[in-house]
Amino acid sequence: MKMDNSPARGTRDLLPSAVATRDHVLATITEVYHRFGYQRIETPALEDITRLTGGQGGENEKLVFQVLRRGLPGTVEAGTPLAELVDLGLRFDLTVPLTRFYGNNQATLPLPFRSFQFGPVWRAERPQKGRYRQFYQCDIDLIGEPSVLAEVELIEATAQALAGVGLSGTTVRLSDRRFLSALAAAVGLAEETWSTFFIGLDKLDKIGWDGVRAELTGRDLPASSVDAARERIEALTGLSADKVADTLSDTVPSLDDSVVADLGTVAGCLDELSGLTWEFDPTLVRGMGYYTGQIFEVGHPSVPFSLAGGGRYDKLIGRTLGKDVPACGFSIGFERIVDMLGELPRKDSVAVLFESDVPLANVFRVAREVRSGGRTAAVQPRSGKFGAQLGRLEAAGFTSLIHLKADTEQPEERPLGK
Amino acid sequence: MKMDNSPARGTRDLLPSAVATRDHVLATITEVYHRFGYQRIETPALEDITRLTGGQGGENEKLVFQVLRRGLPGTVEAGTPLAELVDLGLRFDLTVPLTRFYGNNQATLPLPFRSFQFGPVWRAERPQKGRYRQFYQCDIDLIGEPSVLAEVELIEATAQALAGVGLSGTTVRLSDRRFLSALAAAVGLAEETWSTFFIGLDKLDKIGWDGVRAELTGRDLPASSVDAARERIEALTGLSADKVADTLSDTVPSLDDSVVADLGTVAGCLDELSGLTWEFDPTLVRGMGYYTGQIFEVGHPSVPFSLAGGGRYDKLIGRTLGKDVPACGFSIGFERIVDMLGELPRKDSVAVLFESDVPLANVFRVAREVRSGGRTAAVQPRSGKFGAQLGRLEAAGFTSLIHLKADTEQPEERPLGK
Repeated sequence: MKMDNSPARGTRDLLPSAVATRDHVLATITEVYHRFGYQRIETPALEDITRLTGGQGGENEKLVFQVLRRGLPGTVEAGTPLAELVDLGLRFDLTVPLTRFYGNNQATLPLPFRSFQFGPVWRAERPQKGRYRQFYQCDIDLIGEPSVLAEVELIEATAQALAGVGLSGTTVRLSDRRFLSALAAAVGLAEETWSTFFIGLDKLDKIGWDGVRAELTGRDLPASSVDAARERIEALTGLSADKVADTLSDTVPSLDDSVVADLGTVAGCLDELSGLTWEFDPTLVRGMGYYTGQIFEVGHPSVPFSLAGGGRYDKLIGRTLGKDVPACGFSIGFERIVDMLGELPRKDSVAVLFESDVPLANVFRVAREVRSGGRTAAVQPRSGKFGAQLGRLEAAGFTSLIHLKADTEQPEERPLGK
Repeated sequence: MKMDNSPARGTRDLLPSAVATRDHVLATITEVYHRFGYQRIETPALEDITRLTGGQGGENEKLVFQVLRRGLPGTVEAGTPLAELVDLGLRFDLTVPLTRFYGNNQATLPLPFRSFQFGPVWRAERPQKGRYRQFYQCDIDLIGEPSVLAEVELIEATAQALAGVGLSGTTVRLSDRRFLSALAAAVGLAEETWSTFFIGLDKLDKIGWDGVRAELTGRDLPASSVDAARERIEALTGLSADKVADTLSDTVPSLDDSVVADLGTVAGCLDELSGLTWEFDPTLVRGMGYYTGQIFEVGHPSVPFSLAGGGRYDKLIGRTLGKDVPACGFSIGFERIVDMLGELPRKDSVAVLFESDVPLANVFRVAREVRSGGRTAAVQPRSGKFGAQLGRLEAAGFTSLIHLKADTEQPEERPLGK
């Protein structure tokens, strides 16, 4: 019986050429992060449902694939809350598992701990083009380092990883959550409205200032505050590097000096890196509520979206560990980068084609000889029309051919498709 | 608040040293399989629940983690069958997804198709030592090749992959499902009892012949048939290679000549491989019901269990595709191999330690210089007692140290822990 063999709704199969690109990107990133001392860890895909709905994940918590308890009776009693049937869920990011991992294993981990993660996450989003319900994230985190050493290192490592896959000439946009808070306070916004203000501001590149103003005043923020914020943000936009510190102190006088100094330190270190430019971006928000210090995104001139983003989250690990541990993280947009790269050039590989009267042991001996030099060889019986079969071998990616007949004494290799 | 930070029951966190071993094993296996022309594919972790409970997976189908439908009301109506609440599940192996993948993508895949898969699978088993609810499988499959070319190639590639991780000197145990069927028929067992016979025989190494006899007669198989099977199996056990074919034809005369010839071809090819021995094992069953031809397992003298196993399954893809496609697969026991290898030796890595009065940009410059040679360098501020900090750096795996002070002109590297 022929069944529908599509993957589950919103998920996808990855063909060999797609996997080859992904493996190449991953290998490049891994090599760079290893050189910076980051070590890969791994956590299970399943986490307790209480952890996945504990408030760390913001809107993503509504998108958890929930897993039924085992051993339940076959029919459900009247009025059973759905939540009682569920005990596990699939992780929606790698940060919630990382904080649990750190809490679970901190006694055996070095301090500071340089963590590298790569793995699938799941979100039950409405399927749409280019957005999948299973996708990969790639995170590095430096846990236990309170200074901007962490920020500089994460940015340098990530820019280098991107350069490794051919995306050099990146632009880093920098800001600080403490700047945003000070700005909100300076324009007279009450503290309980700050997160509304940030969420609105985050939409600036999509809906413009008129849209932001309409949204924020619609949520009862004073128009005068929004206008004042806009004025100060515009004064801070497009500044040359040497002007940022002074303008910040002028524009948001209540801002702690250390925040300005930290931005200066990071900027000074980034100035030393070739193939990278940076700018202070007063409109940068980053979605997650857990950031406590600097935030940053990396872009590339060839695309309008950011390729990586992160920031400092000094209070997040404390929520589960019981004591705060400073931490800073960066997430590379793995799927976006893979989409930008497309297919890799074909690798050298040899088709060993044999007529039916050649003993199999001989065929394997010839293939073994090719492989012993580290090359790829695949054996295949001759069948059908010769030219058509050569065409299929070429289409399958083979770059050369050895054709064995019963009387072949010295196998000869010849290029395919030339 | 301090929370319990353990991973979900029956799952585990993988620490950096464990991941390093796993990555090493995977890289070695991948390199070998690539050389044989196998290309990695990937399928989603989630599959439709109907596919995971369609009968391909045997006992594993009872162990599926089931995923709740999205958008259900918060409480369940009286008498709702649990099954109505579920639409997806986590895959329990890589074979069911492979047959779906092949059906979904065959138009764009070469024929024959050499598939390599590596990924996590999930089974809701009772947690016990060394057995986890999430673990990795590593499968190669050759789809579309009807001859024993497939069997020979899969065995050679897998033995070479095992040799690559240091497990040379493997033993291959060979049999054929058609031999088992012919044996069952020859000793007078009715066809509907054959699978009971195979399941019982599969326990021979655990419960011995007395146990197998008791179990099978307890399930109403005639004692005379079981005794006759034992006699023939014993006649076929421990044979030297040159005796297998004749003894098979004598012991199970109804066995098709082509089955004996195929075993001879495979044996002849394996005889050419150094670092590998083979034997015909008439008690080899392999659990899954879908095998149709040769079956095989690879063992190593250092362990009592098999390290890899597989066989031919010419009728499985047809169940979903609507037409049969010959196929043969081999699964490496990835978790077992990783457990056997333990921790890898430490890699060269440099700690760049700096006093607080050294500008951060200088510190990064020194680290960058080390990394430019492809080595690993991690920066870290000096803190606490010097000797204690060196001890922590050693424990964290650093093999050498560069110590930067404000007056350091020429950074010097010295070994740690020597």
